[in-house]
Amino acid sequence: MKAIIHIGLKPGVLDPQGRAISRSLNDLGFDEVVNARQGKVIEIDIKGKDTDLAYKRVTDMCEKLLANTVIESYLVEIKK
Amino acid sequence: MKAIIHIGLKPGVLDPQGRAISRSLNDLGFDEVVNARQGKVIEIDIKGKDTDLAYKRVTDMCEKLLANTVIESYLVEIKK
Repeated sequence: MKAIIHIGLKPGVLDPQGRAISRSLNDLGFDEVVNARQGKVIEIDIKGKDTDLAYKRVTDMCEKLLANTVIESYLVEIKK
Repeated sequence: MKAIIHIGLKPGVLDPQGRAISRSLNDLGFDEVVNARQGKVIEIDIKGKDTDLAYKRVTDMCEKLLANTVIESYLVEIKK
C-alpha cells in the first residue's frame, strides 16, 4: 500500500519561502505571478492490507513526526 | 488562475531525506513503513485567462528557477 501525505502551512501563517519564490519569479520577468506557496508531499510504502488501519497509523505518524501541527496542516491519502 | 507544480527526485537519484523519514518512523515503532520519498508542491496564483499560455509560462518557470532538472522532475497542473 502507498500513503501520500500533503503537508502545507495553515492559513495565516507567514510563508517566507513562498514570498521568495514569487519575488524571484517577478524578478525573472514573470510578472503574471501574484502569489506563491510551497508545501511538501511525503510518499510512504506500507506493508499490510488494512486501509483503515493504515489511515490511522499514518495520521499518527503525521502527529508524531511528519507535520508540525502548530503551523502546518496535513491531508492523508491511502492508495492500494 | 492557479498553477500547481509537483516536483520530485528523478528515479535512481539518492534520497537522503526520504531515508531519514523512513528510518525515524521505524525507530518510532512504525515497523510497517518500508520506504519514503519526499517531494514538494508549489502553488502559484497567476493573472490572465489563457490556460495554454499559462502552462507554457509555468513550464518555463520550472526550467529556469523552480526545479533542478538535473535531479528533479516536475509536473504542471493548471486550474481555472
